[in-house]
Amino acid sequence: MIPAPEFASFTPPRRILMGPGPSDVYPEVLAAQARPTVGHLDPLFIGMMDELRSLLQYAFQTENPMTLAVSAPGSAGMETCFVNLLEPGDTVLVCRNGVFGERMRQNVERCGATAIVLDFPWGEPVDPAQVEAALQQHPQVHFLAFVHAETSTGALSDAQALCALAQQYDCLSIVDAVTSLGGVELRVDAWGIDAIYSGSQKCLSCVPGLSPVSFSPRAVARMQSRTRPVQSWFLDQSLVMGYWSGSAKRSYHHTAPVNALYALHESLRLLASEGLEQAWQRHAAMHQELKAGLEALGLSFVVKEAHRLPQLNSIWIPAGVDDAAVRSRLLQDYNLEIGAGLGDLAGKAWRIGLMGYGARRENIALCLKALSDVFRT
Amino acid sequence: MIPAPEFASFTPPRRILMGPGPSDVYPEVLAAQARPTVGHLDPLFIGMMDELRSLLQYAFQTENPMTLAVSAPGSAGMETCFVNLLEPGDTVLVCRNGVFGERMRQNVERCGATAIVLDFPWGEPVDPAQVEAALQQHPQVHFLAFVHAETSTGALSDAQALCALAQQYDCLSIVDAVTSLGGVELRVDAWGIDAIYSGSQKCLSCVPGLSPVSFSPRAVARMQSRTRPVQSWFLDQSLVMGYWSGSAKRSYHHTAPVNALYALHESLRLLASEGLEQAWQRHAAMHQELKAGLEALGLSFVVKEAHRLPQLNSIWIPAGVDDAAVRSRLLQDYNLEIGAGLGDLAGKAWRIGLMGYGARRENIALCLKALSDVFRT
Repeated sequence: MIPAPEFASFTPPRRILMGPGPSDVYPEVLAAQARPTVGHLDPLFIGMMDELRSLLQYAFQTENPMTLAVSAPGSAGMETCFVNLLEPGDTVLVCRNGVFGERMRQNVERCGATAIVLDFPWGEPVDPAQVEAALQQHPQVHFLAFVHAETSTGALSDAQALCALAQQYDCLSIVDAVTSLGGVELRVDAWGIDAIYSGSQKCLSCVPGLSPVSFSPRAVARMQSRTRPVQSWFLDQSLVMGYWSGSAKRSYHHTAPVNALYALHESLRLLASEGLEQAWQRHAAMHQELKAGLEALGLSFVVKEAHRLPQLNSIWIPAGVDDAAVRSRLLQDYNLEIGAGLGDLAGKAWRIGLMGYGARRENIALCLKALSDVFRT
Repeated sequence: MIPAPEFASFTPPRRILMGPGPSDVYPEVLAAQARPTVGHLDPLFIGMMDELRSLLQYAFQTENPMTLAVSAPGSAGMETCFVNLLEPGDTVLVCRNGVFGERMRQNVERCGATAIVLDFPWGEPVDPAQVEAALQQHPQVHFLAFVHAETSTGALSDAQALCALAQQYDCLSIVDAVTSLGGVELRVDAWGIDAIYSGSQKCLSCVPGLSPVSFSPRAVARMQSRTRPVQSWFLDQSLVMGYWSGSAKRSYHHTAPVNALYALHESLRLLASEGLEQAWQRHAAMHQELKAGLEALGLSFVVKEAHRLPQLNSIWIPAGVDDAAVRSRLLQDYNLEIGAGLGDLAGKAWRIGLMGYGARRENIALCLKALSDVFRT
């Protein structure tokens, strides 16, 4: 026998999470998650799942019946959209202005489809004029994929304009809303979004591990007219919906992550209780406070003001400052996590998140004071 | 605006979970899961991940470095094994003696590989003699896939003998240990298992949503010699291992389900503290007590004694008894969940789980008394 290792129970400190996610989790969400596990076919749990779908529809502002939470993180939500919609031979226009546009390209190619990539500088939004030119140039394109809120840079793209172009050029839109859902304006039905995915651990302030998704009737029709099975059994929506569908008779697909779904239900309930527009306004207001403080410390933003995400603030690391040493001191001395740069911005920028429950004045005060202290000494 | 729904926080009752999973969760695990969320790149969390790998290696009885938890349920663990190992053109011998062997076949085909299916009656184990004959007959087979503990029937197959055959015929073995891990003898290294997946919500008594997996050096070599990328980005082990690898410098792949991993760490810690062999013995002993009581009630088992899983007891529903009505009364009047039949056994059998923390005398006493009461009235 390989001998049993002996470890103590893991007791993490209380960190203040101001990175790019996971964000600070609502205390009510942690409490909800710890409630007793019930069976995934228990009638009481099925009732909760019905409520959860209504709450997801509210957060997405959609009446799409195919609205649910994938039982895995946001990158599985991304994959869910691509594998269910694409077939070999399809062509997708992928807008790339950060890490997650590139990840979309990789998903497209792993589906055996073709990606036409339209590049934009890191830190800038996707430009609808260039997208329209590309759609005119490539009539074989039937999908437009872009990231609403680029978590790697903090840039916000105009999802409404881009989805209108998709409709105009007879494309289905696939939208990454991992960091946008709950933090900035997002209206799935009004904007005509066809497939959208998000994550539980950003502006919803739930624990990480789940990915809300929603598909328009146009997207569902596309899935139903597939000529070959979805390459992923686990993410195949035609199977998953047997469990998530509204009827009382739900069929087993996989064992739902019961306690994580309690947590998502609670976080969405808190969002609905605050009100979606109020949450958008709170993120905007808290961003203004953080911005004023950061600029007073002499820090400057990566993204121009017009396209800046309130919930993800990318700032240039000042010359001569040791990136890792600062983040390490913030963590050790203040229990404060801010995010490192990712991809092209690694070592050059920090990412300060103001997401969900984390978008509040106490966090901003701590962050500004801690940065100020660390810069001085 | 679509208006905000108003729902109360979900407060589930305390059920006694004696179905096929999720099983009763250790109270310590629920408490661990509710601890504060930290970042997935926090040095303290990375330390916990190192411990978690050691604990998984202990539970699997393996020294495989590629031992980790997939951030999704057991069916994603199954898919992880198939998509990372198979390429189009490969042929897999799939042993099918229940629902999960059939799911393996579907995974094989969705990878563009060929499945040769060897069928065994539901409730019976996989027969090594027939497997050997098939391996002799089909020299193009390079993978042998089977379910160690069939959750849909309660039958235990001889994984040691089957993996020895796989090695003898130059095949890689792919083993479903969703219901076996922690409940019956299982030795990955000693038995020469190449790829194995399990679930958090069976005999580990953790919350549902994670899938422990392990790959032998032979399996890793196979992955490294692939000629084309893994079709799933999310499950691609060559990317995932950048985060799970032992070095201090871990790279971001996806946001780990932080709190669920606290829970898994705690459940494996409790298993290590009890001792793996002691846990196997406890499952066997509790099964004997349940069996005596069920037989005293006139109930009989689906699976012959020699191949019966202690942790999953399939019993025939007595003639004239209303399946759904009995399960519903157990749930409503006793807060007791037992499992319905699945697939071929739907409406014909019940599945009574004695898994992990659920394999204890209090649960057995409740189950026997409740069944006895419900049968009488």
